[in-house]
Amino acid sequence: MSKLLEGIKVLDVSQVAAVPMAARILADRGADVIHVENPKLGDQFRHLVRFMNQKTGIRSDVNYIWEQYNRNKKGITLDLSQEAGQAVLHRLVESMDVFLTNLRPFELERFRMEYPTLSRINPRLVAGFLTGFGKEGPDKDLPAYDHVAYWARSGIPHRMRALSPVLQGEDVVPPAFMPAFGDHTAGMSLACGVMMALFARERTGKGDEVHVSLFHSGAYQISFDLSGTLVTGEDCPVMDSYDDAPNALYGQYQSKDGRWVLFSVLRPDRYWSRFCRAVGREDLEEDPRFHPVENQLRNRVELRAIIQEIFGSKTLAEWRPILDAAQLPWAPVQSLLEVIDDRQARPNGLFIGYEHPEYGPMEGVTDPIKLAGYPESVRLPAPEFSQHTEEILLEYGYSWEDLTQLREQGVIF
Amino acid sequence: MSKLLEGIKVLDVSQVAAVPMAARILADRGADVIHVENPKLGDQFRHLVRFMNQKTGIRSDVNYIWEQYNRNKKGITLDLSQEAGQAVLHRLVESMDVFLTNLRPFELERFRMEYPTLSRINPRLVAGFLTGFGKEGPDKDLPAYDHVAYWARSGIPHRMRALSPVLQGEDVVPPAFMPAFGDHTAGMSLACGVMMALFARERTGKGDEVHVSLFHSGAYQISFDLSGTLVTGEDCPVMDSYDDAPNALYGQYQSKDGRWVLFSVLRPDRYWSRFCRAVGREDLEEDPRFHPVENQLRNRVELRAIIQEIFGSKTLAEWRPILDAAQLPWAPVQSLLEVIDDRQARPNGLFIGYEHPEYGPMEGVTDPIKLAGYPESVRLPAPEFSQHTEEILLEYGYSWEDLTQLREQGVIF
Repeated sequence: MSKLLEGIKVLDVSQVAAVPMAARILADRGADVIHVENPKLGDQFRHLVRFMNQKTGIRSDVNYIWEQYNRNKKGITLDLSQEAGQAVLHRLVESMDVFLTNLRPFELERFRMEYPTLSRINPRLVAGFLTGFGKEGPDKDLPAYDHVAYWARSGIPHRMRALSPVLQGEDVVPPAFMPAFGDHTAGMSLACGVMMALFARERTGKGDEVHVSLFHSGAYQISFDLSGTLVTGEDCPVMDSYDDAPNALYGQYQSKDGRWVLFSVLRPDRYWSRFCRAVGREDLEEDPRFHPVENQLRNRVELRAIIQEIFGSKTLAEWRPILDAAQLPWAPVQSLLEVIDDRQARPNGLFIGYEHPEYGPMEGVTDPIKLAGYPESVRLPAPEFSQHTEEILLEYGYSWEDLTQLREQGVIF
Repeated sequence: MSKLLEGIKVLDVSQVAAVPMAARILADRGADVIHVENPKLGDQFRHLVRFMNQKTGIRSDVNYIWEQYNRNKKGITLDLSQEAGQAVLHRLVESMDVFLTNLRPFELERFRMEYPTLSRINPRLVAGFLTGFGKEGPDKDLPAYDHVAYWARSGIPHRMRALSPVLQGEDVVPPAFMPAFGDHTAGMSLACGVMMALFARERTGKGDEVHVSLFHSGAYQISFDLSGTLVTGEDCPVMDSYDDAPNALYGQYQSKDGRWVLFSVLRPDRYWSRFCRAVGREDLEEDPRFHPVENQLRNRVELRAIIQEIFGSKTLAEWRPILDAAQLPWAPVQSLLEVIDDRQARPNGLFIGYEHPEYGPMEGVTDPIKLAGYPESVRLPAPEFSQHTEEILLEYGYSWEDLTQLREQGVIF
């Protein structure tokens, strides 16, 4: 079986999360990806695991964050602030199919990497640009991270504000600490945009520019609600407590051992009888307080208390087989260790294993797309710093003398 | 300018959120999408806005949820539980490029819609399947929604558990009420998988099957952390309070008017001096408690209190120009009304306007991908129930007599 993106050459001029992830999605499917790092600083993500070890006390010699975002790539260094570095980049671009970057518009201009420049060099080039707040508007050049641009500014935490059964109203604060969460939505969108442009290129022979912003990715995530605000001119409904939930089978309950059990039933009429039987409370099924379903909606706060009492009577381990057998739409809030061991995880290829030359056998998480004809593969570990600079530059026509000179100028490491 | 997916025919046999969203992403780019609904029940999302109106008291005659997920599609009805309905579906599949569904594996088998069947009818078909928990494993046929499969089971709320400056430890509960949030990540991934398969088909002439699950989409979102758990065998670090945050410029502060201001600074050395000057506290810049940066990390709890005091001294409106001018990576937690009015929103095409035959001019939210050569467009409003059944069936070779018979059998509405 051949690889989906065999022969597709990608230049990944980015760091941290969103664009490296987009490039890795392509790399996992056979694209030849070259990741460009600054010869002095390197990619910030190279060093993050050291900080994580320090913070958490969980020591690991495996730079799993670096691997997760950069497996299957070759790595070179290039100082793009120097003209000589820009010249190397332009020469590479001649042969590329895809160019990806998270540099901001003013940096692209300063470094001669704007789309018109690149497109003149290679009209077949598909160029993908990730920004915090979009390529237009007064804030196009502002620095941005996931939390700021995807998260806070798009209104997501506002919508999540009042969602706890414990807290009420104004006390409830937005969640935070969600590393590289929006980056993954934006990275997937960028990969999708690149595939759209590659598809078009098959038909027209011409490249295109693709733009994705973290802010827009957040707005897309929350578009169910945002589309309402657009039309009604009213802010989204913020539920101040679970009493506002549509029905009592929608929400979370705590088991005897303090675990959260989440139900997501939008139409209780479809699940009510099954639920009552599963939890051994057939007496509730036709209880006039909760039957027919209209009464149940009216008395949902009372019902919620009864259901909490029911769930508090057994541990999660006791509930699992009961709720599964009843085919109810439920799940426990799992820990990450439980996710690793989840019986659906490995049969569905959530992880991919490979032999790392330094760490030995290890695994990473895959993206959620499974093409039957084109499975992902790991052919390369994430690159060491500047590992492939010489190899790549020689491949693209530079001589050993050129390399010595570029190194002396500090253009490469 | 032609449309990216001009001439691409898509059959969307799904309802609610994730798959309709994937199909809409394709539809916004010119694909001819036919949305199939059950002739008795219709798509659940048709009726949700009524419930929303009732719950929120925000009355709207515009079915904005239906529009948001189904603009640019034609709508037909078809009872797929009847053999005659399956025969119609099979005939349509002969001419389709893409088939999308969220029916579960056992339903696909029951309704003769498994990939081998469809692929025999049309070997060029790209078939995209969305499941809750994957196509393999003991839970492949379990019912699932976003909250359950994407959210709780993937560990996301576990990671978000202890993220509030108000709550500590065990009291902190997972957030809930995040309608169609994971559906959008999964929908984008499905659209991306379809584009990958369409790209491959340009080269090979052959179709493929694409699988995406909500559970895997959640694992992908949290893969930064999950990759660590895979390698270390330890659960993710759960921070029990902001005192565990990496530094004081990472987190949220409340302004004088109670608004949350979010900072996301991973490397305080780069922003410390700029921050101190922006907020008018040059005295802190070389304060030995906070300088050099190592001291600042050590004394971050003390610093956090000082920064909260600073932010509490001005309103958000007063802070905005100050923080923007300093180019700090910050954002307020915006309401959805503020998102609509955000100065970056319209210049970057977050919304798309169209003339609705019934509602008049209206707007919807776009997905975050912008291709310069192929802008999105709205050519059709979301379909009325069964609006195009006759048109489509006549187009695909059925006669008026056939239609009468199918209607009598209850196969179409």
